[in-house]
Amino acid sequence: MDELLPSWRPGATRDALVGFLDGVTDRPVDERVACFDNDGTLWCERPTYVQLDFLVDRLTAAVAEDPTLGDQPELAAVLSGDTAAIGEMGLERVGMALTGLCRGWSPEEFTASVRDFMSRAQHPTLGRPHRTAVYQPMLELLDALREREVTVTIVTGGGTEFVRAISADLYGVPPECVVGTMLAYDYDRDDHGRPRLRRTATLSGGANEGAAKVGAIQAQLGRRPVMAAGNSVGDREMLEWAAGGDGPRLSLLVDHDDAVREFAYASSAGTFTEQEPIVDVARRAGWTTVSMARDWDAVFAVFAP
Amino acid sequence: MDELLPSWRPGATRDALVGFLDGVTDRPVDERVACFDNDGTLWCERPTYVQLDFLVDRLTAAVAEDPTLGDQPELAAVLSGDTAAIGEMGLERVGMALTGLCRGWSPEEFTASVRDFMSRAQHPTLGRPHRTAVYQPMLELLDALREREVTVTIVTGGGTEFVRAISADLYGVPPECVVGTMLAYDYDRDDHGRPRLRRTATLSGGANEGAAKVGAIQAQLGRRPVMAAGNSVGDREMLEWAAGGDGPRLSLLVDHDDAVREFAYASSAGTFTEQEPIVDVARRAGWTTVSMARDWDAVFAVFAP
Repeated sequence: MDELLPSWRPGATRDALVGFLDGVTDRPVDERVACFDNDGTLWCERPTYVQLDFLVDRLTAAVAEDPTLGDQPELAAVLSGDTAAIGEMGLERVGMALTGLCRGWSPEEFTASVRDFMSRAQHPTLGRPHRTAVYQPMLELLDALREREVTVTIVTGGGTEFVRAISADLYGVPPECVVGTMLAYDYDRDDHGRPRLRRTATLSGGANEGAAKVGAIQAQLGRRPVMAAGNSVGDREMLEWAAGGDGPRLSLLVDHDDAVREFAYASSAGTFTEQEPIVDVARRAGWTTVSMARDWDAVFAVFAP
Repeated sequence: MDELLPSWRPGATRDALVGFLDGVTDRPVDERVACFDNDGTLWCERPTYVQLDFLVDRLTAAVAEDPTLGDQPELAAVLSGDTAAIGEMGLERVGMALTGLCRGWSPEEFTASVRDFMSRAQHPTLGRPHRTAVYQPMLELLDALREREVTVTIVTGGGTEFVRAISADLYGVPPECVVGTMLAYDYDRDDHGRPRLRRTATLSGGANEGAAKVGAIQAQLGRRPVMAAGNSVGDREMLEWAAGGDGPRLSLLVDHDDAVREFAYASSAGTFTEQEPIVDVARRAGWTTVSMARDWDAVFAVFAP
């Protein structure tokens, strides 16, 4: 067998992971479920979410075909990079306006568009393609879990279909194991009477953050996880949910404290109210906190340019 | 390798299955998804749904503890076997009243209760436990699909959590691959501040029948199936959805025409309006119809009493 977790430096964090990996095989296989947040936990979420980059790319292409799209105030603000206006309207409203660019698309058209973007998009500052801005130590952890028959899932605040389009390629996670913010579809029949699904520009529920993640895990995966990993206050309830059952459990918090190799910031995604910093919650709850600067020997996946 | 589909008799139906199994491996693995209805497709649904038997069993136990439950008109009708009153109130209203018996339960309590029931419940007329009233030819088909790296899923009108409680045991299908009618959960925190999910007595969406199955397949599984199997008008849209894509596809309709070994009836689950009989839809659409009487050498799984 290959060396276990080679990019994780020796220390308390790695010891906690190894201890969990050793113990998880004592559980029945049907209890072995692990839930990973995506943005900031499996891949880089700075300076902007990759999904936002995709939508802006989409907007650029759409405006080239139909310049009147620039008349929509939300889209105009994005096109001119007017961050003040975007801040005033709110990211949710702007995001939904951008999502409207794919209204009427079939699921397959959307997936193809995401994959096309991901095949060519560059991270704006890291000097590598977006698809390689995934955390090498986390990929090793996913592999170690799967070797122990743990079902690895992604529970993201991002769009379900967006993440599903790349989850098998980047993480080896199939679509049914991706739980995210869900768009509503219109069902009707085409001119030949065949069923058809087309994207709307409204969510079928709320954003998949906070307590919503716990409900969505039950609804879509049907089991309480024995492990969860996240990096923001939007992951707090999911991390508590994983920690709250019996037997050995692991709640893992990624702390972005590496300004040299990645970014240093206190994660606050998923909420815009003042809350206890998630690293303080983790300390108090006894979760395992990952210091990117201290615990990771490599941050990103190696790639051939 | 073991013989392929041993309980399927030679003929056009078996040839269609073998042809599909031969062709499906030419597709990329990520397109290989098959969706199976449960009641009447994977296990016997007559004289009543197994889930209804479970709820009636639950009612008997609950009334022994609290006789005032019998004052509810829906529950009184069930207790006295008053089929006229049940028919007048409608199965949906009666079913929701029965579902209310598990209000406040945790997901784990509900799962344990279903498993306890299934470990002891007998089919009322077939002389075998409910858990063995599963169709042996369909189990062989599920295995043959999995051997070809097809993701096998269950898309049922039944309660998601009910089917998930037994799907791994009976069919080898994990919870995240079961898509059904979903109950809403209440999220709150217990006295120690830990997150908690408890069952309500309301659905989180509608019944998972008809066009709803197509939407739920996209929402939860994220892919259009290359194969679907069903037995009722509630499966029509799913069967059309599977048939409507490109490449080799299989839409399989189980026709209950075997009064000797099982039951003979025209399936109408999922709708109460007059519709074209589903076997006529299948013939017109060119789907593969399974005659239980003609195509199956054995109907039920062998079991040791």
